[in-house]
Amino acid sequence: MLTVSIDEIKGWDRFYRANFINSLSGFKSASLISTVSPDGKTNVAIFSNIVHIGADPALIGFVNRPKEAAPHTLSNIERTGVYTINLVDKYMAEKAHLSSAKYEEGISEFDALQIDIDFLPEWKAPLVKDAVCSYGLKVAEIIPISLNGTYFVIGAIQWVKVNKSIMCDDGFLALQEVETICSLGIDAYYTTALVNRWEYAKPFKKAESIDAVPKLQQPTR
Amino acid sequence: MLTVSIDEIKGWDRFYRANFINSLSGFKSASLISTVSPDGKTNVAIFSNIVHIGADPALIGFVNRPKEAAPHTLSNIERTGVYTINLVDKYMAEKAHLSSAKYEEGISEFDALQIDIDFLPEWKAPLVKDAVCSYGLKVAEIIPISLNGTYFVIGAIQWVKVNKSIMCDDGFLALQEVETICSLGIDAYYTTALVNRWEYAKPFKKAESIDAVPKLQQPTR
Repeated sequence: MLTVSIDEIKGWDRFYRANFINSLSGFKSASLISTVSPDGKTNVAIFSNIVHIGADPALIGFVNRPKEAAPHTLSNIERTGVYTINLVDKYMAEKAHLSSAKYEEGISEFDALQIDIDFLPEWKAPLVKDAVCSYGLKVAEIIPISLNGTYFVIGAIQWVKVNKSIMCDDGFLALQEVETICSLGIDAYYTTALVNRWEYAKPFKKAESIDAVPKLQQPTR
Repeated sequence: MLTVSIDEIKGWDRFYRANFINSLSGFKSASLISTVSPDGKTNVAIFSNIVHIGADPALIGFVNRPKEAAPHTLSNIERTGVYTINLVDKYMAEKAHLSSAKYEEGISEFDALQIDIDFLPEWKAPLVKDAVCSYGLKVAEIIPISLNGTYFVIGAIQWVKVNKSIMCDDGFLALQEVETICSLGIDAYYTTALVNRWEYAKPFKKAESIDAVPKLQQPTR
């Protein structure tokens, strides 16, 4: 095992450090966020720092980089109030990654990357047509993070469009079956394989009862 | 495809709805956050809503549920200022899941679940000994989210301890090689398989050039 202090890390090459710190916090949701400007220019870009905030009300948050670096999505959300989040599967992974390029305002990534677009009646923000799951949000709160100029954007879910085949009897979405992906760091994308779903956890009354949980043996590393 | 409005979703059974909304936003980082109270009582609990906020300064955020539901981690962070995030691999997945149970204050999940504990010199918050990657944070900002009583907790990375074998030449951590897992919804855990790492994306100059990107054919669903 290697133990390094933040002061050592700060001395590393900028790109090496960015890869390291970005991958450190683990796998993330790979999603395309699609928006539209008030004059009808569509936009779609990949985001991975997306969190579940609550189920009732149904709230989702995402981190938007500083406006200088990533202006269009946030600006469209501020002006129209709505956006669509689309899960990415492995079949659209490369195009989704390419949407992270800095396109000029007025150029739609839908056009430039030939991502098929779709619309729902009475919902301004476009959808990624091929997504196995899309959901629409109304912005609820935009929290500026003064520490580094990023924004934490919270939205309230308004509707969900999902492939019925992955809806389980208990409401769970078996996303692995349609190969939606997760991301790691700034450029890596993964499919997933289910390890298990475990029951709602209750405290063990006696320390011994944990012995019932088999501890898998880690391989020597 | 099924399209449902939030009003329909609100009418669903509570547990069905929770499974649905929780899994909707995709795969998340499965991590154990370990803390200690000022009088030395250790605590460890699983968290999955973790985001990368920035690489320089190196900032990580996580969502903490309302204090009534999940008091110990946040209270320890508020009082000691520090915490450790430990990535979960498939060998510790079940114990990690069980740490979500509501243990009484004073009962350490390290003891109850027989999770091996470790410490670094001059760092108060414990580490999960078997974790392939742990990192220590000083709390930088705690943002209360008034919409539903949750908290967005932002920390600045102070040190990283990582299995050297997964550090790539460019700083990237190949977490799939040591089978760290991601989570989906409230109870599902997954290993991952790399699809690809793609180069830093630049805008296409001409719409035609996107034809160079092969579009994988989605299976019929």
